[in-house]
Amino acid sequence: MKKILIQFDTDAMPSCFDRVVAVDAGVDDLFSYGGISTENVVGLVHGAIFTRGPGSLKNTAIFIGGSRVADGEAILRKVQASYYGPMRVSVMMDSNGCNTTAAAAVVAAAQHLDISATRAVVLGGTGPVGHRVAQILASQGANVRLVSRSAERAAETCDLIRTQTESGTLEPAGAATVDELLNCCHGRELVVAAGAAGVCFLPTGVLSQLGDAAVAIDLNAVPPVGIADIGVTDKAKVIGGTTCYGAIGVGGIKMKIHRAAVASLFEANDRVLDTPEIFSLAQNIQNA
Amino acid sequence: MKKILIQFDTDAMPSCFDRVVAVDAGVDDLFSYGGISTENVVGLVHGAIFTRGPGSLKNTAIFIGGSRVADGEAILRKVQASYYGPMRVSVMMDSNGCNTTAAAAVVAAAQHLDISATRAVVLGGTGPVGHRVAQILASQGANVRLVSRSAERAAETCDLIRTQTESGTLEPAGAATVDELLNCCHGRELVVAAGAAGVCFLPTGVLSQLGDAAVAIDLNAVPPVGIADIGVTDKAKVIGGTTCYGAIGVGGIKMKIHRAAVASLFEANDRVLDTPEIFSLAQNIQNA
Amino acid sequence: MKKILIQFDTDAMPSCFDRVVAVDAGVDDLFSYGGISTENVVGLVHGAIFTRGPGSLKNTAIFIGGSRVADGEAILRKVQASYYGPMRVSVMMDSNGCNTTAAAAVVAAAQHLDISATRAVVLGGTGPVGHRVAQILASQGANVRLVSRSAERAAETCDLIRTQTESGTLEPAGAATVDELLNCCHGRELVVAAGAAGVCFLPTGVLSQLGDAAVAIDLNAVPPVGIADIGVTDKAKVIGGTTCYGAIGVGGIKMKIHRAAVASLFEANDRVLDTPEIFSLAQNIQNA
Repeated sequence: MKKILIQFDTDAMPSCFDRVVAVDAGVDDLFSYGGISTENVVGLVHGAIFTRGPGSLKNTAIFIGGSRVADGEAILRKVQASYYGPMRVSVMMDSNGCNTTAAAAVVAAAQHLDISATRAVVLGGTGPVGHRVAQILASQGANVRLVSRSAERAAETCDLIRTQTESGTLEPAGAATVDELLNCCHGRELVVAAGAAGVCFLPTGVLSQLGDAAVAIDLNAVPPVGIADIGVTDKAKVIGGTTCYGAIGVGGIKMKIHRAAVASLFEANDRVLDTPEIFSLAQNIQNA
Repeated sequence: MKKILIQFDTDAMPSCFDRVVAVDAGVDDLFSYGGISTENVVGLVHGAIFTRGPGSLKNTAIFIGGSRVADGEAILRKVQASYYGPMRVSVMMDSNGCNTTAAAAVVAAAQHLDISATRAVVLGGTGPVGHRVAQILASQGANVRLVSRSAERAAETCDLIRTQTESGTLEPAGAATVDELLNCCHGRELVVAAGAAGVCFLPTGVLSQLGDAAVAIDLNAVPPVGIADIGVTDKAKVIGGTTCYGAIGVGGIKMKIHRAAVASLFEANDRVLDTPEIFSLAQNIQNA
Repeated sequence: MKKILIQFDTDAMPSCFDRVVAVDAGVDDLFSYGGISTENVVGLVHGAIFTRGPGSLKNTAIFIGGSRVADGEAILRKVQASYYGPMRVSVMMDSNGCNTTAAAAVVAAAQHLDISATRAVVLGGTGPVGHRVAQILASQGANVRLVSRSAERAAETCDLIRTQTESGTLEPAGAATVDELLNCCHGRELVVAAGAAGVCFLPTGVLSQLGDAAVAIDLNAVPPVGIADIGVTDKAKVIGGTTCYGAIGVGGIKMKIHRAAVASLFEANDRVLDTPEIFSLAQNIQNA
């Protein structure tokens, strides 16, 4: 029986990136839908769950993507609410690559640090990727300082993460100027920048002032990047004693995680691959 | 040469249900178009008929679907009008599953009754599925009472069916209240409810009053169903002496018919699979 | 690794014609996008180039189609501007079949004439197909008279072609009436009509007056055709001493060129198949 992946993309044009990865992950038939909203997902899910017998449903799965992460999260809830008991298919959410990117960043850091004993700081921590990086780090026992321009939003995100994992410790912080941001980085072995496109947190020449940072990762693929001293293709490049990764530098790990996650959807018909599940998969790849 | 199925769907999102069935019917490449209307079908049909030699055209076929059956019928006419003599491909129309559902209902009934000697009643007989159930029953020699809230529309549909088949007998009836509907069912061995979603013809507890009904079939998959005593998953379940089927209860047969019909498109390049052809195929499956 | 073709179509419904040809050219997975504009192409190209390693990128390619040729040309430029150095994939432009049709016309003519020694006339020479026929003929050393209703636009197109090829000679001409058009055809061994749909240049009975024309080709597939004496299916049919081809008459060659061009995209990751490259491919097919 052919492996069918149904791509729900909230953008008008379903992501070409996600389509190529699906093919390379071994999907036989890919149904790509663009312009998906919570309004039109139920009928499509019913088409997915009512066309094959319960024993064969593991050969059908759903992938949720698109540039708007909050919309992807709403679609994921709607998809799960459309199942009927055992009539369900596995589903993965990776809007804007948020989960695979966050997982790849932590996997990269874990090659140099014992995450459970690490004091980390996440700049841009209230955005979809930053939130997930902080969530994964905390789930592995790290002490995480989550930074946003708004201290209030940083606190809200920390509260949310505490409902998602009981491990680690979370500490919100508000910071807007370079000095404030540098202050937040003091005493942190791991610095992750996960801001929106176009937001530069730390300008050129500042990296050397992160005296305690053993590892610095910038997840912005489009210049200007968040930590200007890091190049997008840097991969474990040591700059002034700090091991640095750019967005493309963690891209190889990210691609492996993405492909493995899609492939794993077809092992059962009840998988829900969101942040913790995708990180767990990433760890298995790393340890293999 | 690869088997290509071109899906013309009148809904914005091409049916996921029809796509999975196409894959499972052995289609190699599926071209799914949503938002199809009679305005944009000609160029696509020309693309289908002018790309492979006459001897190879049986490897290309068209499937017409979507929730609006009247639109599907118009598309079917337009597709056929776009052919050039022998430059044509096989085509199947099953908007909203109307033909495969109607065929499945009659096949289910025929496991318990000699249709040619059956007095049947079709509630909701002017809708797309009800119309087709009545048409198929008449074509097999049954005496069919076709019921609608409007006696006038029931008469119009009977007239239309008489142009589609010369067999059987048709008798229109108007009925709105439960008493009127029960009256229409008196003396009928087969009762089929094919109303629109949300329309309940016979409330709970009434089934036992259908004294003559050997078989009762409700084709509404979403509660409230048309005959409240029947469950959607009932499959030849005997309730008070009447053998009952719900929509999902005939779903297994429907799926087999759907798959077989799609597969048969690729046996020649000139098949037109509408109500009679799909029922004929359903009979062959049943007898095999 | 599977061969993926990404179809960028400027029409709302991606061409069914181009999809069938892609399948028959050996493409494993076809990603079809309709409604493509220069606004939405960059993200899709990045998805194409950043998902497979440099050594594997030859297994991904882009096909640009749709009815509006100028839009297709703009998309081609945008696609090429979206590459990053070696991170690129092969791309073919054939909006409205302009390149494969023009190449097929010249290949057909070359079966009867030495193009380098031919005096040719192209009616409707400023349209996308006429322009390309004239360009290819000039590139092969022909003397080309390019005819349009507007002498000024004919001159502009000739100037443009002179920037595209240094071979051959080009001579613009304005002609609107049948007499003026016939005048333009005098002394020409090859007459190609490449007007817009519905434009008839030479009415019935006029072909015999083209005394010098050894070959006449009409590329309009929908009646009324440009040279009324030629039938759309004529293929090397001799009419009054002139060897004639209609649009479907060159269709067999066109299809071979189209399939071969798509297949050749996957030989490397840096092919750009536009007019000269597609004609070069067409010659290889012809000589094989």
